[in-house]
Amino acid sequence: MPAMSHRLPVELAKSYRLLNHGPTVLVSSAHAGRTNVMAAAWSMPLDFSPPKVAVVIDRNTFTRELVEASGEFALNVPSRALAQLTLDVGSVSGREQDKFDAQAIATFAGTRIAAPLLEGCLGWLECRVIAEPHIQERYDLFLGEVVAAWADSRAFAGGHWVEDADAPRGIHYIAGGSFFETGPAFRLDKKD
Amino acid sequence: MPAMSHRLPVELAKSYRLLNHGPTVLVSSAHAGRTNVMAAAWSMPLDFSPPKVAVVIDRNTFTRELVEASGEFALNVPSRALAQLTLDVGSVSGREQDKFDAQAIATFAGTRIAAPLLEGCLGWLECRVIAEPHIQERYDLFLGEVVAAWADSRAFAGGHWVEDADAPRGIHYIAGGSFFETGPAFRLDKKD
Repeated sequence: MPAMSHRLPVELAKSYRLLNHGPTVLVSSAHAGRTNVMAAAWSMPLDFSPPKVAVVIDRNTFTRELVEASGEFALNVPSRALAQLTLDVGSVSGREQDKFDAQAIATFAGTRIAAPLLEGCLGWLECRVIAEPHIQERYDLFLGEVVAAWADSRAFAGGHWVEDADAPRGIHYIAGGSFFETGPAFRLDKKD
Repeated sequence: MPAMSHRLPVELAKSYRLLNHGPTVLVSSAHAGRTNVMAAAWSMPLDFSPPKVAVVIDRNTFTRELVEASGEFALNVPSRALAQLTLDVGSVSGREQDKFDAQAIATFAGTRIAAPLLEGCLGWLECRVIAEPHIQERYDLFLGEVVAAWADSRAFAGGHWVEDADAPRGIHYIAGGSFFETGPAFRLDKKD
């Protein structure tokens, strides 16, 4: 990690907050020297502590092969600046090309799993698959335990999203190349 | 449904788009004359057609009792105007009070399930539980098939979110009373 990096570890019990607002994520994976990345709009937290996540990984993807073989995956939360990449990684299968090379995607190494993590994201969740073969096979639904988490401190620091209006934000895929940006933060108090 | 209603049916194969961008939802339920509503940040689409969803429903909630007893639930996508309500329905258990009465929440009837649907939302998904007892018990994770879907045509029409900057939008819960608004829509073309 370079000296100027803004990447800082996230307390595991607060790592769900990187996903709680429903951003679209990039799923990265590695096995036996091959790597891949795909976009996933269908992911969510599943538990606080130990933190767990759920993500849908279609049976026809190369990512699925790598995740099943390695028992690991990373969820990368892309910034708005990575929206085009998020759309483009779905254009071709990782079986046909190494997307990291072909699309010049910069990565860095995680600490607990082998999957590469993508530079330029707001947060990263390193996950180990919780084996549930029935739902994997029937629904393409994968559960994972978050074993390490990281965030760009310009976006998320001290367990909270930075509330500055100009802090970098993520994206929320809809369909057909259309996205919503993450909008402004606001805070409410519970009524007594 | 009053004559001036903007509520229109959503084609089932496009109903995932009501959830695809990761909004926080309200889960409503009914059984044997009792009803309830809770907020859920942890929901996602699970399949396109027939459409399925996944949602986490904690074992300690009254909603859980009603969903398990009835085999049904609705996911209501609240507008920004319902953010305070979304926070407040978590303040008290439906075992202790009828939240619809106590918080003066207006509802209308669905067509395929008994759970009441909340007025003022952007979209509604009527769901039947797909019984998966192992993951219900172990992870509080419920799967449902969407059997009817509705949207406010000022927000979502013809299978698409209305792109006007002033169209009503939803909310994305983070933690501790903090939310993100859904931000502006944008569209990209896939790179060749």
